[in-house]
Amino acid sequence: MKTGILTDLYQLTMTAGYLQAGKDRDIATFELFVRRLPQNRNYLVAAGLAQAVEYLEHFGFDEEDIEYLRSLRQFARCPDAFFERLRRLRFTGDVDGVAEGTIVFASEPLLRVRAPLMEGQVVETYLLSTIGFQTLIATKASRLVEAAGGRAVVEFGTRRAHSPEAGVLAGRAAYIGGCIGTSNTLTGLRYGVPVFGTAAHSWVQSFESELEAFRQLQKLLGEATVYLVDTYDTLEGVRKAASLGRPIWGIRLDSGNLVELSRAARRILDEAGFPDAKIMVTGDLNEYRILELMKEKLPVDAFGVGTELATSGDAPSLGAVYKLVELERGGERRFTVKLSEKKQTLPGAKQVFRYRDHDLIACASEEPLPGGERPEPLLVPVMRAGKRLAALPDVHEARERAAAGLRKLPTAYRSLFTIDPPYRVEISGRLAALYDEIRRKVEGKLG
Amino acid sequence: MKTGILTDLYQLTMTAGYLQAGKDRDIATFELFVRRLPQNRNYLVAAGLAQAVEYLEHFGFDEEDIEYLRSLRQFARCPDAFFERLRRLRFTGDVDGVAEGTIVFASEPLLRVRAPLMEGQVVETYLLSTIGFQTLIATKASRLVEAAGGRAVVEFGTRRAHSPEAGVLAGRAAYIGGCIGTSNTLTGLRYGVPVFGTAAHSWVQSFESELEAFRQLQKLLGEATVYLVDTYDTLEGVRKAASLGRPIWGIRLDSGNLVELSRAARRILDEAGFPDAKIMVTGDLNEYRILELMKEKLPVDAFGVGTELATSGDAPSLGAVYKLVELERGGERRFTVKLSEKKQTLPGAKQVFRYRDHDLIACASEEPLPGGERPEPLLVPVMRAGKRLAALPDVHEARERAAAGLRKLPTAYRSLFTIDPPYRVEISGRLAALYDEIRRKVEGKLG
Repeated sequence: MKTGILTDLYQLTMTAGYLQAGKDRDIATFELFVRRLPQNRNYLVAAGLAQAVEYLEHFGFDEEDIEYLRSLRQFARCPDAFFERLRRLRFTGDVDGVAEGTIVFASEPLLRVRAPLMEGQVVETYLLSTIGFQTLIATKASRLVEAAGGRAVVEFGTRRAHSPEAGVLAGRAAYIGGCIGTSNTLTGLRYGVPVFGTAAHSWVQSFESELEAFRQLQKLLGEATVYLVDTYDTLEGVRKAASLGRPIWGIRLDSGNLVELSRAARRILDEAGFPDAKIMVTGDLNEYRILELMKEKLPVDAFGVGTELATSGDAPSLGAVYKLVELERGGERRFTVKLSEKKQTLPGAKQVFRYRDHDLIACASEEPLPGGERPEPLLVPVMRAGKRLAALPDVHEARERAAAGLRKLPTAYRSLFTIDPPYRVEISGRLAALYDEIRRKVEGKLG
Repeated sequence: MKTGILTDLYQLTMTAGYLQAGKDRDIATFELFVRRLPQNRNYLVAAGLAQAVEYLEHFGFDEEDIEYLRSLRQFARCPDAFFERLRRLRFTGDVDGVAEGTIVFASEPLLRVRAPLMEGQVVETYLLSTIGFQTLIATKASRLVEAAGGRAVVEFGTRRAHSPEAGVLAGRAAYIGGCIGTSNTLTGLRYGVPVFGTAAHSWVQSFESELEAFRQLQKLLGEATVYLVDTYDTLEGVRKAASLGRPIWGIRLDSGNLVELSRAARRILDEAGFPDAKIMVTGDLNEYRILELMKEKLPVDAFGVGTELATSGDAPSLGAVYKLVELERGGERRFTVKLSEKKQTLPGAKQVFRYRDHDLIACASEEPLPGGERPEPLLVPVMRAGKRLAALPDVHEARERAAAGLRKLPTAYRSLFTIDPPYRVEISGRLAALYDEIRRKVEGKLG
């Protein structure tokens, strides 16, 4: 696995610059958060922390990477000391993270990295990409599961994912978000996510007759048999499936008018004596389409969602950012802010405290906290001095955490559409005062 | 690199079924194509063939993969012979592909795989994902470059890509589609794509003053220095940059009203005696926004595009499919079709012939071809019996091919919006007749 070199070039030029300016050993604190929720989202399901930690544990540069960087015009003025430094660079920092499956909101840090400035800077790109993407997909999955109102949803999207590896991670994140599993077998092997799948149209086409294709499938899969019935004539396909009797799990509809076809298929299966045979539907589904189908009270038992889930089709990116909030040098601490229009950041290391009915973003060490309750701090220690503290929760625990978090969320915020006002996330008085103080200081210098 | 196991489970259950049915050594032909162009697209830029071939060359299963599959309920009925077969499975087929950078249209095969049925089936998922994604991004890049009307466009999107690996491939595909390079250093190292980048807001924030941050950057980068000027007060930032004199490449604007700021920045730079200092703009750009900015005749020299490019924001997926079109068994050949509503496929191995002003999809071996010209066949031999025939064109050749193809395309079809009627793609008379014949045969059996 290539690690350090999978970054944006400017992270490396800045790293060279920190060394040049003698700031390379300053201790920086960066925080990763989402500025604004994507359209129609009222919450996010955090995911990707496990891959982030794995990356940081293996962070480093190969000889080949160093030679490549040496060849670039951007490093033409760099002394050998820089390349020597890169060669030995490891991640030695502290990481606090929000557990995978936690429900989070805009502006809440999902990850806090405290490390020598060089290290903390170079890792930005990878951390954003892996946490941003999985959080995006876990959130999308939770919406599909909400729309399906208790029916099973399976992730089928690797073929449309943004590269095969994205498909593997999409399957993982979708499971955390509430899907019952994925079609991706590498996701199953690597992460222990349940895998699903039976046969495609090419299976049916490869036989001289549809009936023979079905017969062979039943022999192969027994009670796990799902007949894909729409290769030629859908209802004819259902009749053939029914004619083969037990064992059968059910049928899959992948095209056509799902409302009419699922009802007609249900009748055929019932009349043939298989009221327990299930109907799964697939084919260009998303949460909005599933909601429509559910309103029609279709006799559907499971949904398979591919493209829209693995790409978060209606909102294919998350505005995740990773911002410098604090710098320490020789025992002195300096808070940093950014004042760019609509892109302001809050200074200093922070913590998110979860109260019963709202969240509070506060200074990391803030005490006492307002309110009578003892709120839950969402950011917990994950790495210290570059070492993982303990095994992280696995995907099953993360999935349970997401389900529990969604149950606790007021129903309105589980809506597939934006609710105004958003879930209550407050900024502590101390943090607000700190922001004002730093802003005035910076503006004073500018003015 | 894990290969065979990175697939959909149903590819593997089908594979087991082919063995059970004694069809595993039937020779299948599959074709990969895009059913419909995404919204606002009039063409696609093919990309991803190199990664597809690399995957096929390394295709196989590890012991760990086999053990995992053995543990699944779906394979509970499978004989040892199946797992033995998987253990030895390699890709031994023939592949014909459209060269990367070629302009293609809906329904035109980008890849044709002829292989024993088991092999041809299992590879579907990976091939779709790698070719579909890169084609999506190369196409998006070509639109950005078109909108920028000759100004440079750089890909900056890894942090928002769908996983770090997707970012690496997005940088590659964006270069093929016409970007001048990427910020991703691993893309640079692996594929020889030019890399760009200087410094982020955290660079500026890490210094006590913006001026000191700029001074250090200039010392580091010399003539490659790009000052990011919007961390605090944008025009103040431009003035500071100008105050440092040469060497300078230019400045970067990342937020605020780009129309007003770029004009004001240009004036400041000109008045300070740096008419050759360039202005780059970044920040939530896409082709539509660039088109608007270009209409305002802004004094902008280069665009950096991240999120929207690396995720193809307005159309984040491509309806790429991989369909069985032909089966051979004991010297006998059978064509296959799919009659599902709106998802019909054309039978038999095909070729795309490029004429001066239109394309023709014909049977692979079709002769004589209509028309007086000698059209160019787009699908060319890439692998035979599992071996690569020759080195594939590199990204630079692919990029030139894309640029040449776009120049030849009638201007109207380079529009950022859908043109009706679409570019002319005809089906040969022989292919149309074959489809009718097979359809009647299948419907006859069904009826």
